[in-house]
Amino acid sequence: MKVLIVGLGLMGGAYAYRLSNKGYTVYGSDINMDSIDYALEKKYISNGSVHPEEFIMESDLIVLAIYPKAIVSFVERYKEYFHEGQVITDICGVKSDFIYEATKLSKPATYCSHHPMAGREKIGIAYSTECVFGGANYLITPTKDTKEEAIELLKQIGTDLGFKRISVMDIEKHNRMIGFTSQLTHAIAVSLVNSDHDSDTKYYIGDSYRDLTRIAMINENLWSELFLENRKYLLEHIASFEFELDLLKMALYREDKDALCELFRSSTKIRKEMEK
Amino acid sequence: MKVLIVGLGLMGGAYAYRLSNKGYTVYGSDINMDSIDYALEKKYISNGSVHPEEFIMESDLIVLAIYPKAIVSFVERYKEYFHEGQVITDICGVKSDFIYEATKLSKPATYCSHHPMAGREKIGIAYSTECVFGGANYLITPTKDTKEEAIELLKQIGTDLGFKRISVMDIEKHNRMIGFTSQLTHAIAVSLVNSDHDSDTKYYIGDSYRDLTRIAMINENLWSELFLENRKYLLEHIASFEFELDLLKMALYREDKDALCELFRSSTKIRKEMEK
Repeated sequence: MKVLIVGLGLMGGAYAYRLSNKGYTVYGSDINMDSIDYALEKKYISNGSVHPEEFIMESDLIVLAIYPKAIVSFVERYKEYFHEGQVITDICGVKSDFIYEATKLSKPATYCSHHPMAGREKIGIAYSTECVFGGANYLITPTKDTKEEAIELLKQIGTDLGFKRISVMDIEKHNRMIGFTSQLTHAIAVSLVNSDHDSDTKYYIGDSYRDLTRIAMINENLWSELFLENRKYLLEHIASFEFELDLLKMALYREDKDALCELFRSSTKIRKEMEK
Repeated sequence: MKVLIVGLGLMGGAYAYRLSNKGYTVYGSDINMDSIDYALEKKYISNGSVHPEEFIMESDLIVLAIYPKAIVSFVERYKEYFHEGQVITDICGVKSDFIYEATKLSKPATYCSHHPMAGREKIGIAYSTECVFGGANYLITPTKDTKEEAIELLKQIGTDLGFKRISVMDIEKHNRMIGFTSQLTHAIAVSLVNSDHDSDTKYYIGDSYRDLTRIAMINENLWSELFLENRKYLLEHIASFEFELDLLKMALYREDKDALCELFRSSTKIRKEMEK
């Protein structure tokens, strides 16, 4: 199996590193020659180039590990190299309209998007080995046109990358859920850290603050795109969150211990359920 | 050095376990005989009783690892056993008026409060060994009456427990800061989890959601007390946080990528500063 990874950043690098260790023939492409050299030197890829077309035709799978906005222009530019039996996928954290566009342009190859729910608060291929996929979720989001073989291939890739739970799901549901579990959490962490106006907060932090705010160190270009692509759902989730925070504020204003306990019991129950 | 730990829960147990390993003579008291038996069996304590007065007189240090509301009544009930040269401390996460009351009642012994900023989202002595103090902050909060020797003793205890950064600070500043780094983070995690209305959220979670919501599993009786004791500061911090979240919402409504990037750059910078 020959795989071309387009975009040798943190995640593209992690895919290349793990798939080549699993015996895949991995090619790499990036606009940055340094990243290609790094991947070659570390043997994450067997060959690389700033010109992806050198490898597109012979690849069975093309993984686009690039920004959401770059996907359609990539597919458009290189579509003449695509052929039947090939699968093209992306690893974007939101699955918006670009998927339908990319699906159309990729024919006769099959486009099928997926979302590996893992990463690191770092940028660049040098941190790729820190991306641990064990224990993480891996979501495949086909459209109604997606061929079954493409879904099966992506399941195999997810397994070989070491993901724990591989699911196939509807794109709209994916976006709604991700707006909650991923984007809302980042929005909260960013806002919390930005509301820190004291210069010596670090002397007062415990594990809770450390864990909650780690994701406030964020790749601004990528995440501003993800937020805007999915703003409809993200804004809905922010509203639900604010509603719950209001209940807590009300309990504090009223000094209502029972109401606080009830909120804490509820969150404990819901969160424990998730550990299963 | 003889230390009496009153309250053999998660934290009291962790203190007993670590201090006895460091060569201290540790006594334990709890209203629950099972916890005492567990501590004796595991050799966390050399002797224990449901009657703390059996050990108070011979102890150099008494650590109250009990709920905030229980502290003043403890000191009041056993004050006749206290004597000069003894230090009495508590490990509460908020330092409210009970400290002044306890300081007065403890004389001729010296009362000096402290706050170990570590723990686990678990209840009970059986999880004590999971409390890891390395890397954590340890705050000593004396009043103007506190003798220097008491502060020195608590510094020694913090060092022997393995804490990384030991600071001495003003009580009001402590409460304001803790309202931010500890209580606000718990308030946010609880509200986030309570706003989850989908039964299969667990298929969509990544590290960010997992890390941010771990603390939503919360000891409701303890934390409702902590929240109410410190509600003035907590409500102020919630307001600052909501202000920042509003900025983010505004950027989303306006589809303003630059404003989002600016918020993300700010949070990244502030949070990175903290890693130092």
